[in-house]
Amino acid sequence: MLPLKLKKVMDVTLKLGGDNFVFWGGREGYQSILNSDIKKELDHLAAFFRMAVEYKTKIGAKFQFLIEPKPREPTKHQYDYDAQTVISFLKSYGLDQHFKLNIEPNHTTLAGHDYEHDIIFASKLGFLGSIDSNTGDQALGWDTDQFPMDPKKTALVMKTVIEQGGIAPGGLNFDSKIRRESTDTEDMFIAHIGAMDAFARGLKIAAHIIQGDIIPKLVKERYNSYETGIGQKIEKGEATFEQCEEFILKNGEPTPHSGKQEKFELLYNYYT
Amino acid sequence: MLPLKLKKVMDVTLKLGGDNFVFWGGREGYQSILNSDIKKELDHLAAFFRMAVEYKTKIGAKFQFLIEPKPREPTKHQYDYDAQTVISFLKSYGLDQHFKLNIEPNHTTLAGHDYEHDIIFASKLGFLGSIDSNTGDQALGWDTDQFPMDPKKTALVMKTVIEQGGIAPGGLNFDSKIRRESTDTEDMFIAHIGAMDAFARGLKIAAHIIQGDIIPKLVKERYNSYETGIGQKIEKGEATFEQCEEFILKNGEPTPHSGKQEKFELLYNYYT
Amino acid sequence: MLPLKLKKVMDVTLKLGGDNFVFWGGREGYQSILNSDIKKELDHLAAFFRMAVEYKTKIGAKFQFLIEPKPREPTKHQYDYDAQTVISFLKSYGLDQHFKLNIEPNHTTLAGHDYEHDIIFASKLGFLGSIDSNTGDQALGWDTDQFPMDPKKTALVMKTVIEQGGIAPGGLNFDSKIRRESTDTEDMFIAHIGAMDAFARGLKIAAHIIQGDIIPKLVKERYNSYETGIGQKIEKGEATFEQCEEFILKNGEPTPHSGKQEKFELLYNYYT
Amino acid sequence: MLPLKLKKVMDVTLKLGGDNFVFWGGREGYQSILNSDIKKELDHLAAFFRMAVEYKTKIGAKFQFLIEPKPREPTKHQYDYDAQTVISFLKSYGLDQHFKLNIEPNHTTLAGHDYEHDIIFASKLGFLGSIDSNTGDQALGWDTDQFPMDPKKTALVMKTVIEQGGIAPGGLNFDSKIRRESTDTEDMFIAHIGAMDAFARGLKIAAHIIQGDIIPKLVKERYNSYETGIGQKIEKGEATFEQCEEFILKNGEPTPHSGKQEKFELLYNYYT
Repeated sequence: MLPLKLKKVMDVTLKLGGDNFVFWGGREGYQSILNSDIKKELDHLAAFFRMAVEYKTKIGAKFQFLIEPKPREPTKHQYDYDAQTVISFLKSYGLDQHFKLNIEPNHTTLAGHDYEHDIIFASKLGFLGSIDSNTGDQALGWDTDQFPMDPKKTALVMKTVIEQGGIAPGGLNFDSKIRRESTDTEDMFIAHIGAMDAFARGLKIAAHIIQGDIIPKLVKERYNSYETGIGQKIEKGEATFEQCEEFILKNGEPTPHSGKQEKFELLYNYYT
Repeated sequence: MLPLKLKKVMDVTLKLGGDNFVFWGGREGYQSILNSDIKKELDHLAAFFRMAVEYKTKIGAKFQFLIEPKPREPTKHQYDYDAQTVISFLKSYGLDQHFKLNIEPNHTTLAGHDYEHDIIFASKLGFLGSIDSNTGDQALGWDTDQFPMDPKKTALVMKTVIEQGGIAPGGLNFDSKIRRESTDTEDMFIAHIGAMDAFARGLKIAAHIIQGDIIPKLVKERYNSYETGIGQKIEKGEATFEQCEEFILKNGEPTPHSGKQEKFELLYNYYT
Repeated sequence: MLPLKLKKVMDVTLKLGGDNFVFWGGREGYQSILNSDIKKELDHLAAFFRMAVEYKTKIGAKFQFLIEPKPREPTKHQYDYDAQTVISFLKSYGLDQHFKLNIEPNHTTLAGHDYEHDIIFASKLGFLGSIDSNTGDQALGWDTDQFPMDPKKTALVMKTVIEQGGIAPGGLNFDSKIRRESTDTEDMFIAHIGAMDAFARGLKIAAHIIQGDIIPKLVKERYNSYETGIGQKIEKGEATFEQCEEFILKNGEPTPHSGKQEKFELLYNYYT
Repeated sequence: MLPLKLKKVMDVTLKLGGDNFVFWGGREGYQSILNSDIKKELDHLAAFFRMAVEYKTKIGAKFQFLIEPKPREPTKHQYDYDAQTVISFLKSYGLDQHFKLNIEPNHTTLAGHDYEHDIIFASKLGFLGSIDSNTGDQALGWDTDQFPMDPKKTALVMKTVIEQGGIAPGGLNFDSKIRRESTDTEDMFIAHIGAMDAFARGLKIAAHIIQGDIIPKLVKERYNSYETGIGQKIEKGEATFEQCEEFILKNGEPTPHSGKQEKFELLYNYYT
């Protein structure tokens, strides 16, 4: 029974001085809506997490609780589908102060988002605690757990980590697997080297982008109408619909800035 | 500018005695992560909704605010991706008391869930306010807005509506479109008749299932270990890990009930 | 080595009087385009099938060779992706006289088509030899091998079988699996009963549709401009562009018939 | 009516000295299997192409006929789904001598394959005639027609073009569109420059890979068991199952080479 195992692992983690504690709910979901009482299952899941929080307090542990979102496989539909689903769950059950997220981009793509999506959203919403670096394959619909090898993707991850000022006590871990056909012993080493290099290269790209300040400045400019006047009031939460109306009637429709997506893609190619 | 239009429509809705007010944010999302400041955009979206709530209060309107989730198209990734993403957003910005959801199952399938998923989750989490009945096509990746024609699906929707005690002041609306090749005038009538029949048949199926009490009873049995003893204590939030441990050491691992998915599918076929 | 096993199984099949011989190439594909010589692999696959044809001739076996298409899993991309990919392969290598297809609709949905698609296309192109009835789940991206339970789907399969005058020496087989959570012994029986019932009900629906002649007649009408005049000449392959031009200049643009998809869906609901 | 328009365009193409003639069947497919006679529609499509071939012969035109595969949108399911589906169709109707393929990788990803898949398969099967360079977005399910910006992808395309000795009289064309939010005039120029650069960079990468001969050599080694002995006989089509059996009984099971996918990915990163 899960609570029993969990209690033991929490005891051991405390003893070993562990900094993080990941809940990988890889099978907690429903297979068929016909035989499932969704509300009961969510309630039970919350009860389980509450017991964990209470026990952690009782033993005086300080490690960070983390939930790793995953949309499916082997279940049809997991309760911790993606970052925002978990945040919805945590806030609905008053558990959001006790948990952060351990994001695996492989699961993010399986949920229909891009590799970096949940990393960025979790970070911006204050929930990014750790990263499980595996990549998936967007043409495939199962959990391939491949070694991450695309610097264009790792750079976006590292840029997010830099922007949030690091990720301690969490970190970046690999639990990737080599392919079934990679049958030489050296393949395991090559894979780790390749993936670490991909992240190292990603970190350098991210640093160049931030230091070069061309891309960040262009992004900033896109939103500069929120820095003064009515825009600033909107951003500060001080504006009203009546003030917006007055502004438009006086100034006319504002011209939108071009999104310049192709320019950003071209610039990004320059850095990668 | 959006706030201006919205103010007008709120004034008009108040005058006409409207019961519901749907925010269809069908383009509010990002196209490229490279040129987007996600945090700023979410903040601005929240500021916009706060202004709407304030203005509604000011004019003394009582209509229900609703947000209609949609994952994508034409944007790459919308901020109101699915039911739980919107709930996460609303709770993150303290707006959850002011909004319910208008679920369109067509958008639910586009987000990678089954037709009924968001209807059921929104309902169980207390956010189901209204239903936009369009169906999509699970083999296609865009918003097809087809007339719903599958009683096996409409029955699950109507069962949820019955279980939550009705859906007023919201309702069930069609904004489905006939196919491009359906060029006769009568096709518009046939489509509405067919879709209304599909929901009427769905309602009858749902009523039979609930009254027959075979399926609901089987579901209830699946969770009956939570009705007494340690299970009941867990459900009530009164159990601790230590008590769970004590229970297991004394009683051994509990035997899981069979999910009996095939039996449920067979029984469901009997009703549909 | 595969040829060795295959030789043995062919010998045994001959001895047992087997009618069909299925090649399930469930892993014959590529994982990465970077390390694969696609042309060589297709050539080798064809060489393998040619040896099989030669050996079958040599031992005087009469059983029907069948290939079962499957798009992926565990490989990234299989060479026998779907029905038309296999037909392309067989014709490219001059093997099309020696093979038919064993279609598993579960694989068809995994390839991005609807459940019945490959059954119908294989049949209409003269390649449907046998059916493996498993169903998948259109919301999932892996091979779930579920028991088929939807009469709306099985009816389309049985309609195709009736239209091609039966499927002997092939047949309809289940190699479906019960779900991991279906842990009672009786679940295996229930699943088979439910799936056989779904096909029996599908056969009855198909027979009613064909005998009722409402749907078939409407389909026929949709194409009736090909039964006389220039349409008939086009269908017979006797028309030329000049004749089409002459016809249009004299008669103007023909009015297209309405596709009436919603009427067909409504009528199909009547039968199912 | 289509034949009429087509005749005119063929006349004009002849007059202008056009080298290629692309059939973009972007809407030739079925929306619903219920109202469609698939066989009739394929027959009519073939009749149409036969008239085109006859007319081309009659006017003495030498331009290359090309078909551009596309899986869907706006139809549910097109008849020219992907490269191998079109090859299957062409061979089934005896039209394969008269047509090549114009591959748009954007359509390839929409069909569930990787960007480069149809380019490579069409080339290896002798059907690659021209390339429409647009890219799609693997996280989206519709035809986004974006400017190609990923050198890792364009390199695979250019490598294929080099390997087949060029692509004349076809070529590489852009009919990509800038995003809806790219509202500056300069965005159109930036997008073309970025995409041309991506292909130029792809060509250089491909040339380095081929000249460096590290990756090609490793691929060659993977298949070297087909260069001598029984392997060579299999490849030449001279082996029989009996000879394979004899070989195995004498030599035991051959050890498979490691696929070394991660090494290939790491090396590919070195070049890109």
